[in-house]
Amino acid sequence: MYSIIKDGGVCSPRGFLASGIKAGIKASGNADMALLKSERAARCFAVFTTNKVKAAPVLYDKDVLEHAHFASAVIVNSGNANACTGSQGYADSEKMALLTEEGLNLTPKSVLVCSTGVIGHLMPMDKVEAGIPKLIEKLSSDNSIDFAKAILTTDLAMKSLAVEIKTEKGNVRIGGACKGSGMIHPNMATMLAFITTDVGLPIDFFAEFRANIDDSFNAITVDGDTSTNDTCILLANGMSDIQYADMSLSEQGEFRAALTMLMQELAKSIVRDGEGATKLIEIRVENAESHKDALKMARFIGTSNLAKCAMFGEDPNWGRILSSAGSSGVNMVADHTDLYFGDVQVLSSGRPVACNKEALHAVVRQREYKVTLVLNIGHASASAFTCDLSYDYVKINAEYTT
Amino acid sequence: MYSIIKDGGVCSPRGFLASGIKAGIKASGNADMALLKSERAARCFAVFTTNKVKAAPVLYDKDVLEHAHFASAVIVNSGNANACTGSQGYADSEKMALLTEEGLNLTPKSVLVCSTGVIGHLMPMDKVEAGIPKLIEKLSSDNSIDFAKAILTTDLAMKSLAVEIKTEKGNVRIGGACKGSGMIHPNMATMLAFITTDVGLPIDFFAEFRANIDDSFNAITVDGDTSTNDTCILLANGMSDIQYADMSLSEQGEFRAALTMLMQELAKSIVRDGEGATKLIEIRVENAESHKDALKMARFIGTSNLAKCAMFGEDPNWGRILSSAGSSGVNMVADHTDLYFGDVQVLSSGRPVACNKEALHAVVRQREYKVTLVLNIGHASASAFTCDLSYDYVKINAEYTT
Repeated sequence: MYSIIKDGGVCSPRGFLASGIKAGIKASGNADMALLKSERAARCFAVFTTNKVKAAPVLYDKDVLEHAHFASAVIVNSGNANACTGSQGYADSEKMALLTEEGLNLTPKSVLVCSTGVIGHLMPMDKVEAGIPKLIEKLSSDNSIDFAKAILTTDLAMKSLAVEIKTEKGNVRIGGACKGSGMIHPNMATMLAFITTDVGLPIDFFAEFRANIDDSFNAITVDGDTSTNDTCILLANGMSDIQYADMSLSEQGEFRAALTMLMQELAKSIVRDGEGATKLIEIRVENAESHKDALKMARFIGTSNLAKCAMFGEDPNWGRILSSAGSSGVNMVADHTDLYFGDVQVLSSGRPVACNKEALHAVVRQREYKVTLVLNIGHASASAFTCDLSYDYVKINAEYTT
Repeated sequence: MYSIIKDGGVCSPRGFLASGIKAGIKASGNADMALLKSERAARCFAVFTTNKVKAAPVLYDKDVLEHAHFASAVIVNSGNANACTGSQGYADSEKMALLTEEGLNLTPKSVLVCSTGVIGHLMPMDKVEAGIPKLIEKLSSDNSIDFAKAILTTDLAMKSLAVEIKTEKGNVRIGGACKGSGMIHPNMATMLAFITTDVGLPIDFFAEFRANIDDSFNAITVDGDTSTNDTCILLANGMSDIQYADMSLSEQGEFRAALTMLMQELAKSIVRDGEGATKLIEIRVENAESHKDALKMARFIGTSNLAKCAMFGEDPNWGRILSSAGSSGVNMVADHTDLYFGDVQVLSSGRPVACNKEALHAVVRQREYKVTLVLNIGHASASAFTCDLSYDYVKINAEYTT
């Protein structure tokens, strides 16, 4: 059993402090630096962009985590991605970490760095250096929302969430914040996510975290591209004095379910915020041969422009869904396949079926609905979350000039 | 040396006859049935959609060609794809072949079938059966254009081309016609291409044909989806009395170059005709580790909505190109990469370079231009051809209602 913590976020679990300030990196004057700190060095899991073009902070964090699986803090800036900035960019990331470590009296290599914003520009280090002491000064366990706001770029909405799970030994908490939407400005599309928990996690929990990322942040698609800076960090500081390994099997299951829910809800909030998006659609693929297959097909359909335009047009276009499924490279047999919009079945064994057109159109007129493709060739299922492709997507992306 | 044949097409090579008629399949009343016939049984190579959902005519043709590599004719209809039509659909394709074979006094299994149009509807066989004798009656070597027009669906322009190659033993010819644009109506996006030549081709020329398809019809991307009906057929009837195997090596090279050019030009004409397209852009990837890598990256960039929106907005957005390249899964090193719009260099070794902004904007304002990404890690190169993503793409695809 878990419950949502009202106005919760990264500081909801015990022992986490945060802050967010306006350092002057963004021309808009909005908040653009943030700091997250654990009172105790925390077990750290991180997953980074698979893009071959990696920004300096991603390269720096990977180097740090190669030798340790702990971190005490994360320093974040928005407004400048520190990407395509060469060796100077790497030195700047390193300096951001070093100044934070010095200011917080931490050991070397205990602070990670995340950046998001325009690419190809060197970091305005004078502003960054002036910002770090202010962030440290403002650290507080009440600043979940300040943190969540300061990491945003072109996002329309702040994305913060926390949950509490009851266990026999006491309550434990998971908090999170993220940012990301489609690339409104060139390469401001970075997805950053920060998850905190006061449970103590064993090193082999990484596999669980990795699987959760596939079903959450990797299952969403606004436009199918990855950025130079995508990062998801989980910090587990054990300050509830409850270790995952000491929980009962059912409590472990509840903790995992809560973590999955939190990561999926944060991920869905990114899709809702997709450029020009008017709808959030879950593409569910059921009874595939493997979970990997189901996820691959769901993501492929979720990235199809033809399917996404039809969603925008509120057209229950089964042909585009089926054709896109067939293009995905995943095994399927057309004659075995069923398709549903919401609860309304439109295809049975690959052939159109007579259905209630009124009910069907009512489904696709909703702001959020589910499309379910049942392959009937296996027992694995997965979902992807996508938004529609609207005039505004093109407008936003075409009208920006470098 | 090859030269373009004015108003040429599938009938330009010796011994090919064609026709096109209005059979009443399309509600618009436009031409919707076509026939292509060789006076002599021709060596036949064919490549079909990789979509797991294959239309009846594709399944039928694959069955026919499993046992023979010759064909004497192809019967084509537009307006109905005969897809998602089950066993009745297959029987209808078979009947179209059979009636054509009977009408032309051909042996069984010597006629191929292609269909394109709406999916999920049974073929109107009464109209098709009435159309076949009319097509046979009208067969003529002057009908390249009639054929090219009758295979169209939502295409704005007819796509027909022929070339003549001089050899020591005489001239040989290659002709072609194709159809296809993005999916305006649901699943009318099928790409059909017909190539004819009067050269005699050996069976192992298939590998050459397959490679040409990768660099032409598989190198174009309007929206990245494959359809249920995509088909490309090459018929070589040898009626020039010149065998490919008897040509000199340089003549063989010229023949291959002419075939590549013809297939690429036909493919590019499909992109020019892409839904709402205002620009045709060649994405060139040079000095990659392999041709496969270069083509994969070029296609990936050509399918990026972010890159395509920037092209529509006439924005020389190097960040989107570089980030998309990095997302493609192909090996690259950001610090080795150079990028050009037309002849204007914007990135050198992964870093932005000062360039003439006037010249740069002049490039992206053109209707057709080239973006060149030089990876500097190998010696292989390839191109993909794409169009921009415009308001009209969304409009066309969203406003259609099933």
